[in-house]
Amino acid sequence: MFAGEKYSHKLMKKVSVRIPDVPGALGRLTSEIGKHKAILGDITRVEVTPHHVVRDIIIYFDDAQHVQKTLTALKKLKDYAVISVEDQVLRLHEGGKIAVKPLVDVETLTDLRMVYTPGVAQVCNYIVAHPEETRRYTSIGNTVCIATNGSAVLGLGDIGVAAAMPVMEGKSLILNKMAGVSCVPLLIDSDNADRIVDVLAGVAPTFSVIMIEDVKAPLCFEVEEKLQERLPIPVFHDDQHGTATVILAALIKAFKMTGKDKRTAKIVINGAGAAAIATAKLLLAYGFKHIVLCDREGAIFEGRTENMNPYKEAVAKRTNLAKVRGGLAAAMARTDVFVGLSMPGIVTRAMVRSMNRKPIVFGMANPVPEIWPKDALEAGAVLSLDGRTINNALVFPGLLRGTLDARAPRITDRMKFAAAEKLAALAGKDEVVPDFMDLSVHRAVAQAVVAAAGTGAAKK
Amino acid sequence: MFAGEKYSHKLMKKVSVRIPDVPGALGRLTSEIGKHKAILGDITRVEVTPHHVVRDIIIYFDDAQHVQKTLTALKKLKDYAVISVEDQVLRLHEGGKIAVKPLVDVETLTDLRMVYTPGVAQVCNYIVAHPEETRRYTSIGNTVCIATNGSAVLGLGDIGVAAAMPVMEGKSLILNKMAGVSCVPLLIDSDNADRIVDVLAGVAPTFSVIMIEDVKAPLCFEVEEKLQERLPIPVFHDDQHGTATVILAALIKAFKMTGKDKRTAKIVINGAGAAAIATAKLLLAYGFKHIVLCDREGAIFEGRTENMNPYKEAVAKRTNLAKVRGGLAAAMARTDVFVGLSMPGIVTRAMVRSMNRKPIVFGMANPVPEIWPKDALEAGAVLSLDGRTINNALVFPGLLRGTLDARAPRITDRMKFAAAEKLAALAGKDEVVPDFMDLSVHRAVAQAVVAAAGTGAAKK
Repeated sequence: MFAGEKYSHKLMKKVSVRIPDVPGALGRLTSEIGKHKAILGDITRVEVTPHHVVRDIIIYFDDAQHVQKTLTALKKLKDYAVISVEDQVLRLHEGGKIAVKPLVDVETLTDLRMVYTPGVAQVCNYIVAHPEETRRYTSIGNTVCIATNGSAVLGLGDIGVAAAMPVMEGKSLILNKMAGVSCVPLLIDSDNADRIVDVLAGVAPTFSVIMIEDVKAPLCFEVEEKLQERLPIPVFHDDQHGTATVILAALIKAFKMTGKDKRTAKIVINGAGAAAIATAKLLLAYGFKHIVLCDREGAIFEGRTENMNPYKEAVAKRTNLAKVRGGLAAAMARTDVFVGLSMPGIVTRAMVRSMNRKPIVFGMANPVPEIWPKDALEAGAVLSLDGRTINNALVFPGLLRGTLDARAPRITDRMKFAAAEKLAALAGKDEVVPDFMDLSVHRAVAQAVVAAAGTGAAKK
Repeated sequence: MFAGEKYSHKLMKKVSVRIPDVPGALGRLTSEIGKHKAILGDITRVEVTPHHVVRDIIIYFDDAQHVQKTLTALKKLKDYAVISVEDQVLRLHEGGKIAVKPLVDVETLTDLRMVYTPGVAQVCNYIVAHPEETRRYTSIGNTVCIATNGSAVLGLGDIGVAAAMPVMEGKSLILNKMAGVSCVPLLIDSDNADRIVDVLAGVAPTFSVIMIEDVKAPLCFEVEEKLQERLPIPVFHDDQHGTATVILAALIKAFKMTGKDKRTAKIVINGAGAAAIATAKLLLAYGFKHIVLCDREGAIFEGRTENMNPYKEAVAKRTNLAKVRGGLAAAMARTDVFVGLSMPGIVTRAMVRSMNRKPIVFGMANPVPEIWPKDALEAGAVLSLDGRTINNALVFPGLLRGTLDARAPRITDRMKFAAAEKLAALAGKDEVVPDFMDLSVHRAVAQAVVAAAGTGAAKK
């Protein structure tokens, strides 16, 4: 495993060090780094002088203080010199990760006069006469908006719109790279649902889909519902529906691998936020019967009075029909599936051992899951994966590509089912989900979504 | 001159015709086209069979009826066959002209985890701790919004937001191609200034500049003023200020070429819309003294009561100090400069002849000017150009690049002056403005704007 995978939530630095050109010199340096519990990545030789070698060393640190302490120690090594320390991730993000670029080549003034004034008037006039051709002759047909108020970013919480932008750009980049979608981030600095809805409805003619992203619950529900009511295009909160769809995909395949049955299997979902509630709803719609949601108070059941809200109450009516009570440990006993959409490290090995035969454990908390897959497997899980593998990035590129291609007015459950089933079908024999980097996966998902939209796009 | 330059406001079609392979056959076809007053562009041979040749012929038509009539005639020619008719301009615009694209290469899952979750969290955290670095580590620092309500598009008028989109995309394309700016179009379907301002203020954190485009007067004034009051970033209505700046550039150079003096020269501006009023204001600010604006009622003067509005009244206080009255013909007599920002063909040769020695005539109406440069020159103008040469596309790429590079909070008159002076200085010896396609022109304008912003950015 590349160190970056396990440690990329840490601070990654490229440290250039001048090292004496004698045997054992690199070893002395790496031991010193290890002594401070910093983790080594790639080591590259960049320069050789008569008596020294300069090496770039990728090092993963816990935090700024850890960087400071380790580097101070390295600087004390006799005959060694720390030449520079550079933040690799920051450097990659410098100048932003996306830009609006031309799709047509303009080399001469004549070209220019076709794409701009006066030639462009011909296209304007054509659209006036044929408004139904707008998507064909403009970028609108391929463009999606990704809107956030920065209130629930990754595992970081309410960090504001500016700090949320790198995530929006990352998602835009993935959408283009994996599915050719043009995705415009919009930052709206407001916690008021009506204000957010008003602003997005105001710019909606520019887009064919509006994605809501990293907006905290329950605000995200209100924004999605109200905006969808106002607009003729799909409104899609990926944190809810992308996550729900990829979990459905993983469960379809995992059930096939383990021989479990959606009508009888018992599922515990830990978490009662946007993603957890959306996942419960989608699984129910797909035919799973026995689902229990847990929050900090424990199992949610109809009639519970502590720490409820209208969204939990609605889902409580359709889940936990056996009225299981108690904490997560109690709720997990004798179940088949654990899905975590909550917080790091709250599932113990003992809790996994208390589950039914062949337990399936998906800890999705980001970047540290409810239980590391390795630990869950050691405790007897037959399948265990975390959010690095079961990631909504498997869903949203193909789902949005298909939605655009179908010119669908809504993203329906039927389209999500089609995406999930296609992902499950494309996963390798011993894999729960297919390879995210495989472009053909996203193409196949898009085609399945187009087919599903064809007969179901008008229905919600 | 390439036919496209003079006729690109006409309908341009590529017509494929199968022609008998005998001498004179092409001549017979082109005569028939000429007989219908359609204009020939390039002719390309695409296929040769034993008895026929297939040629693609670019033909410019007046309108759809003209296409129909001409093609019907061509189809009647014995042994000739019209194989296909394709709209070249429409084809170029198919699928839109712009898209949001990645700036960083993502080839492996490791790359992806640096630009997206979990690595991106490092950048989010950095921005939380260093909000002043937002522009550096996101695309915001290089991104401009171009917003329209589609109410005053080119010479086409209020055609709505969808039909305006091809123009917005064209401008976005130019901004990226000429100056590396990322430009996001936003369509807002409203004629209410407060609504437009509210929506744009809502998404403003995403951008470093907001451009207002193709919004009719006087709505555009209200939107620009109110939005600028609310935002810490520049709000820039290009139809006003881009046009004013390129006219200033052309006049600086034209005055140098003709030896005219800005303190004594008499200037008539025909038009009292957004561009005309902004041009008058910028010329006054630059030191031109004698300016008369005309509208349909004729010369505008302080105290005139017919067809006035607050914007005309404000500019009347500072122009036409001699209280010239009467129509355009009267106003133009014994002046040095005519600037048209109005309607096609309203300036006659006689009106040009009535001007002072060495008259300068800029007819900027689009696509057909107030008077064609050829006609003005024949009537004695020493310099005459139209909007194809004196185009705000000479200004906005460098001006916006400079504004972004300087992180200027406002676009000041000082910055516009710097852009205009640089353009005038870069024009060839016998040219009024430099070559738009020369990237170094836009770079030089940007540098001049950065220098001007440095000392004047805070002042309006």
